[in-house]
Order: sequence, then structure tokens, then C-alpha cells
Amino acid sequence: MENLKQKTLFIVGSGPGDPELLTIKAYKAIKSAQVLLYDNLINREILQIADKNCKKHYVGKQPYGKYVPQQDINELILYYCSKFERVVRLKGGDPYLFGRGFEEWLTVQHRSIDISYIPGISSMQGAGLNDIPLTHRGVSEGVWALTGMKKDGTLSADLPLAVQSRSTVVIYMGMRKLDEIARTYVLYGKGETPAAIIQHASLPQQKQVCCKVKDLVMISKAHNMGHPAIIVIGAVVDLQHTLAVAAEQRHII
Amino acid sequence: MENLKQKTLFIVGSGPGDPELLTIKAYKAIKSAQVLLYDNLINREILQIADKNCKKHYVGKQPYGKYVPQQDINELILYYCSKFERVVRLKGGDPYLFGRGFEEWLTVQHRSIDISYIPGISSMQGAGLNDIPLTHRGVSEGVWALTGMKKDGTLSADLPLAVQSRSTVVIYMGMRKLDEIARTYVLYGKGETPAAIIQHASLPQQKQVCCKVKDLVMISKAHNMGHPAIIVIGAVVDLQHTLAVAAEQRHII
Repeated sequence: MENLKQKTLFIVGSGPGDPELLTIKAYKAIKSAQVLLYDNLINREILQIADKNCKKHYVGKQPYGKYVPQQDINELILYYCSKFERVVRLKGGDPYLFGRGFEEWLTVQHRSIDISYIPGISSMQGAGLNDIPLTHRGVSEGVWALTGMKKDGTLSADLPLAVQSRSTVVIYMGMRKLDEIARTYVLYGKGETPAAIIQHASLPQQKQVCCKVKDLVMISKAHNMGHPAIIVIGAVVDLQHTLAVAAEQRHII
Repeated sequence: MENLKQKTLFIVGSGPGDPELLTIKAYKAIKSAQVLLYDNLINREILQIADKNCKKHYVGKQPYGKYVPQQDINELILYYCSKFERVVRLKGGDPYLFGRGFEEWLTVQHRSIDISYIPGISSMQGAGLNDIPLTHRGVSEGVWALTGMKKDGTLSADLPLAVQSRSTVVIYMGMRKLDEIARTYVLYGKGETPAAIIQHASLPQQKQVCCKVKDLVMISKAHNMGHPAIIVIGAVVDLQHTLAVAAEQRHII
């Protein structure tokens, strides 16, 4: 017999990884979830917040590796929403910033299911945790977040526009496109622009390398950088050095 | 006599306004603060989280109105950091996304003060709370956040590049630049692009209007939209209609 109580699907952003960077709203949704559908990027500590009776279903996708097809995820969401009242779809970062959250929302749109979106700290904000502000007056007039991996697998065609801008450029899912990114900047005479690759921001295993954008491939290989990572390009990357010097001076590093 | 215990300045993002959209880390920092320096945009409910003995100092800036000069804020930060161990500088949205947080960080860089940045949900993520995803595969390849108010008061010169992109464009602090924004889109033959103005996202008084970008000025006046608000421009704005129709069909609005 079908459960007639109102069902809610929570589409929840878990932030960059540190459980303390969950919003209070996300924490409460996870705490009271009957089902958690979670991605590869989710810090397993966050899963521990859920009740011991909560069903935790992995639907992750490893970058360029094995994955649960989106169609199967959509069907699982519908299945769980037909059986349970509080289903949480947990995603890394923010579900509406390269998270495909809205695609899953559209999946349930014609069903009797309430939908609640809970935003998360997006991966690019991890730059701040590495002392790189995304904007800074007089240095960057904005921030442009692009995908390195469109539906067809290609890098966003907007990159040549981004290169010409006064904004900080952040590329998500771009670790296989470092060569193309570097070449685009060099083509526009901007190969010397500062760049950083930040991996696992906010987690103990956080790793960061900085270089000129033209050297991204070499530096990434030399430091064995991998997914998941964001690539930050722009003059703001160099601001962190100001702080590093100051910190050395006061001996707190 | 100077207090010799280690002092920490927390530069904290409070998110768009709903106290439940604070991160757990931000909540804890506010809870244990001895001093809170807060902006105009801060929801006063968030101030209630602090201890009753916490000193709450308003350093807000009303858009185009009275404000505490940045230099005075910097001096206040230094003053409080010299007297107290846990000083929280609380800002709307995210301190490093048009929040000037890094400028204040630089203020204390040569002092014996630890600095801790705590990111917040940025105002543009309020679009999601209005059923507008910032990105959506096949519709938008990225999101470009620009300032309507540079150091010299002008709109970011990047707008003509943004207009030509396949990305969602979000303009912060742009309510006095609606005419210039609209004209730029019309100049590039893109006056029909969907646009939304979202005011007070996440709060009970949240307000949203949608139109074509060419009609921004007229619609904003007709609906009496004001600060603080974000302007979202791009095909993603129209996705919400899919949901509105679905919701009507299932009678949950």
C-alpha cells in the first residue's frame, strides 16, 4: 500500500568536504533523512551524521571511471521517494553549480513530491581556504566559473572570452584540459598569468600548487595533482604570497 | 597590560540571510565571539546567536547611503584584536566574493593575530532558492559573477564579454546600473535574454521578478525592487517555469 504522507526530496550541497562547512539546514536534513543517495565526492564523515537506520545508497561517479548512469540515479530517486518521506540527495559543493542538481529535480517534477534545495559552499570557495580571495578590489572585478567537462566532454567554449576578462577564472572538472587551458592563455599573450590547482580544499589532505598558467601541465605532473580539483587563474592567486611573507614574519606558520 | 593569549580574527560569511544557511563553523565562531563587527546586510537574528556578553559593533554601509569608512573599520578591527581573543568580522554572503574580506585580512597581516576565513553561501546561490539553477547542462556552461560597483563606482568593464558568453551572468550591487546592463545586451542583439532580479533571497521578505533583460528598468520600477538584490541573466532563468507548471499540476503551490 502506498505511503500517503507527503514526501520530500532534499537536494543538498555538502560543501567542499569539511563537515563543519555544511550549513545548519543541510546538517538537519541529513540528520533526519531516511535515505541518503550520495556521490563519490562526499566525505564519508558526513554520512555518519545520519541516523543509524538511514539507508545510504552510493551513486557515485569516479572522474573518468566507473559510474552509476544518470538515468539510473533518476530512477533510484523516484523509487526511494515512492517509499520514504525524507529522501536526501547529497552532492559535493553546491548542487546548482555544476552539480546537476536541477536535472534530478526535473526528474520528480510531475510527481507528488515536495522538493527542497539546500545550497552548499561551492568548490571554488575552497580557494579562500588557501588564502586566495576570488575577488579583490583593484585586482579582480568578478569571478567566472567554467566547466572543463560539458555534456559532450569538451571544455567550455567560453574560455577565450574568459581569458580576455578582468575576472578571476575558475575551472571545475578541468584536470584533463590543462594543456588546452594553458594554450588558450598563451594564444592571447597571457601565459604569465598566475594560476593555482587546489585539490581537496578544506580537508586534511588539501594540496595546492601555484605557477604561471603556461606551466600548468608540468607543475601538475611534478606534484602529482589529481581529481577532484579546481583550477584558479588570475592575479588574485598572487595575493596569498603577501600573507605568507607576513606569516613568516610573525612566526605562526 | 596587553593580553598575551593568542588572538584570532575570524572573517566569517553569514550567507544570504536565513540563519540556517550559516555553516556549522560560522555558527560556532559567532557563538564563541567576544566581539562581533557586523554589516548592514546581516540578519539581526544571526546576532542573537552570540553570547549575551559579546560586544556587537555595527559597521554597516547602506547602499548609496551613510557608512563607516573602510579605514575606520580596519582600525576598529585592530583595536578589538588588541583587546580580545576572539573577534568575528561578520559579512553577508561570502567575504571573498565581493565582500572585501581580504582587504580586512591584509589590515592585520603584520600583527600577531591568527586569521581564520570561514566561507559563506554567496548571494548568487539565492537564485537556486528561487528555482533558478546557476548552471544546467545544455543550457549554461558556467556562471560569471560581476560587480556593478567597482572601486570607482562603475560597472565592471567585463560586461560586454559576459554578454557574448554561454554562461549565466550574475551582477552584484548592480541595481543602479540596470539601464547600462540592459543597453549592453541590446547592443549585442541579446535584449530578449531572460533576466531576474532577486531581493532578500532566503528571507521571508524574499521577492523576485523576471523579464527580458531589455525590460529590467521598467520591471524593477513597476515592482519597486531595491537593494540588496542580485541580477541573474541567462537562459537558466526560464527553467523555473517548467517547475511552476509542474507544481500547479500537482497542486502544491
